[in-house]
Amino acid sequence: MTITDNSIYLPKDEMPRNWYNVLPQLPTPLGPYHTPDGQELPPEALAAIFPPGLIEQELSDRLWHPIPEPVLEALALWRPTPLVRAFGLEKALGVTSRIYYKNESISPSGSHKSNTAMAQAYYNKQAGLKRLATETGAGQWGTALSIAARHFGLDIRVYMVRVSLDQKPYRRVIMNLMGAEVLASPSQMTKAGRAALAADPDTPGSLGLAISEAVEEAAGRPDTNYSLGSVLNHVLLHQTVIGQEVIKQLALADEKPDYLIACHGGGSNFGGLATPFIPALLEGQKFKLLAAEPAACPTLTTGTFGYDYGDTARLTPLMPMYSLGPDFQPPAIHAGGLRYHGASPIVSNLLKSGLIGAETVDSAEAYKYARIMAQSEYIIPAPESSHALALTCRKALELEQQGQPGVLVFVLSGHGLLDLSAYEKAPD
Amino acid sequence: MTITDNSIYLPKDEMPRNWYNVLPQLPTPLGPYHTPDGQELPPEALAAIFPPGLIEQELSDRLWHPIPEPVLEALALWRPTPLVRAFGLEKALGVTSRIYYKNESISPSGSHKSNTAMAQAYYNKQAGLKRLATETGAGQWGTALSIAARHFGLDIRVYMVRVSLDQKPYRRVIMNLMGAEVLASPSQMTKAGRAALAADPDTPGSLGLAISEAVEEAAGRPDTNYSLGSVLNHVLLHQTVIGQEVIKQLALADEKPDYLIACHGGGSNFGGLATPFIPALLEGQKFKLLAAEPAACPTLTTGTFGYDYGDTARLTPLMPMYSLGPDFQPPAIHAGGLRYHGASPIVSNLLKSGLIGAETVDSAEAYKYARIMAQSEYIIPAPESSHALALTCRKALELEQQGQPGVLVFVLSGHGLLDLSAYEKAPD
Repeated sequence: MTITDNSIYLPKDEMPRNWYNVLPQLPTPLGPYHTPDGQELPPEALAAIFPPGLIEQELSDRLWHPIPEPVLEALALWRPTPLVRAFGLEKALGVTSRIYYKNESISPSGSHKSNTAMAQAYYNKQAGLKRLATETGAGQWGTALSIAARHFGLDIRVYMVRVSLDQKPYRRVIMNLMGAEVLASPSQMTKAGRAALAADPDTPGSLGLAISEAVEEAAGRPDTNYSLGSVLNHVLLHQTVIGQEVIKQLALADEKPDYLIACHGGGSNFGGLATPFIPALLEGQKFKLLAAEPAACPTLTTGTFGYDYGDTARLTPLMPMYSLGPDFQPPAIHAGGLRYHGASPIVSNLLKSGLIGAETVDSAEAYKYARIMAQSEYIIPAPESSHALALTCRKALELEQQGQPGVLVFVLSGHGLLDLSAYEKAPD
Repeated sequence: MTITDNSIYLPKDEMPRNWYNVLPQLPTPLGPYHTPDGQELPPEALAAIFPPGLIEQELSDRLWHPIPEPVLEALALWRPTPLVRAFGLEKALGVTSRIYYKNESISPSGSHKSNTAMAQAYYNKQAGLKRLATETGAGQWGTALSIAARHFGLDIRVYMVRVSLDQKPYRRVIMNLMGAEVLASPSQMTKAGRAALAADPDTPGSLGLAISEAVEEAAGRPDTNYSLGSVLNHVLLHQTVIGQEVIKQLALADEKPDYLIACHGGGSNFGGLATPFIPALLEGQKFKLLAAEPAACPTLTTGTFGYDYGDTARLTPLMPMYSLGPDFQPPAIHAGGLRYHGASPIVSNLLKSGLIGAETVDSAEAYKYARIMAQSEYIIPAPESSHALALTCRKALELEQQGQPGVLVFVLSGHGLLDLSAYEKAPD
């Protein structure tokens, strides 16, 4: 007998050698970042917290950016990731559409965050930095950057939102194991943290405050830079390895996609899948790029487009994006990585120009399909990824009703093995 | 540049199509199982709790057993598993030996247990059974059998040692997610459980008692069979896919091994690696097969060879094996999967005839190298697997001292993402 191979692999040598920069191909140019008084932000304003290599990428008009060899070697530890045909899920749903998932959960951190973490750690090391400071909410980003810092020989301090740290103590265990220092935020280390603790010693903390602490530390120490896990252009750039691989893998499988779907929090996962497909879309190929966002934090579907701050403390530059406002407090849904009031400027631009779509998924629907996937594919999706999964299933069922089965691809951005409390308490 | 590929993959079609049965090749025949009065156990005595397909394998003198197609398709969901060159670990240790690990952690359950779980569920389904009953200590086996039961459409009840359930609540979450019923043992479901609770309502339970509960349930219900995750011949048979793949992968890499190492609890992981290498050993090839057992439960290195019971409650047949005695209470080390007083009859036989060796590893050494591996390979080994890792590192350092670098292979039997409490509390 021939054994069914459910995975489409690429050989190592087919790994993307360049990152794809969508900026020069946007139908409407991306607006510049602004200072609080509405002036264009000078690039050198970013130099206090980012290395030159990343600042150059943030504002680049070059279409392709070669991936430096040490980053390529680091990514090769787990990439290319497989594109998996979800035979079990198709059967469980009773659909004749073909469903594929891009399995980013096999990275060292268990999520797509490692793609940019490795790149960011490299450019900071190259620029002579000794330390990184960052924040983490759900813990995926802190884990990924801790591993990347270890790989490239940097020290790292992670400000983890106190309530998240209490809910997910094992995230700290992993980061510590990798050599990272993990502090509950707010902390006594920063002015912002001390002020918050003085106001309320029992405050659970917030992502906005943790960002403020990490940025304050990086801005105040010449040996330390700040690192962000989503939203910014250079972060989306690093994630384009996802979409580039999917293009090659679909070609290998001789498949033309109808839907390409990823979840959306800050936008790096969705942008990493979607932007490499933009040229084909502009050439007139027919398929839909869809962002799945949580109903509890509907930035793209109900937010306002305009200049807004990236953090609650209003320390970041103003960015042209869809936003619910920096004071928006999303409810404590399990998909912590999707609880962000804003959206990446690139994804916002693509949505505004009608090149992509966005739909909301509520927690019950996300959990329903996560459970079906666990029972049919034997893989437990991260709560964030479950939103992409659920929207994919919804579209597959719609196609079935219309009698027009198609090809659907979604990104399994991470596994849920460190988020099992979400499954314990999820709606049944 | 050529990108380094650290993994040796086999194509799907190179998956082993047969299980390898070492019984006919043992230099000294394996003794039969015994009843309590010292008589040979009749095979039909096993029929109350095992299906015919597994009983036939338990006592077979056929060298090769074809893997049924449905089992092959199930294994193909994740097999063949990669053999990974541990470049990072070699560098961290400062050795010139080449170290490889067979990565069994990529299975749906995160451990090698899925190899036999899929086979056992299949044969029970084929024999018309509706339900399985089993016990689990650390939780790896319960997880693997829950997934396999789901795959082949069987109900399952898992008796999980109460203290383990309290320590690892997320194991229950996963098993529930797959549709399994999980009970704290002792439970009110069985005579054995009720008696234990009557004697001490607050008893933490034990693996021996959980086995008694599962066996009692299976023996008393015609629709239900019992399933065991290690020790028995048929379990080791199913695990020989590991060693068979390693043989092919080493040939692909043009490597001749000096050491082949796996951890040892009941013996299925070690047996799965070691037995396919026995023919080469008998032909005179020079390499060492080594079992790594915990210093806290040194069955192979200090136990007595003879007929003994497989469980504390003395419900099982007597088996010819090394044992510390059914009343031996190993301390509560983190490697829960290695806390077993006995050893598989096959591994015991191989050790007695001098074909394999065994060495102990204490918790501090296991943890030390687990940490080094996490920081150099970015993968967190299960506490059980850390024993094999530690012994491998010890041997690599010895070879280095002797100026004779070699080739070492160990089985990473599982990942530690669901055992992070072990890393939280481990010796520093």
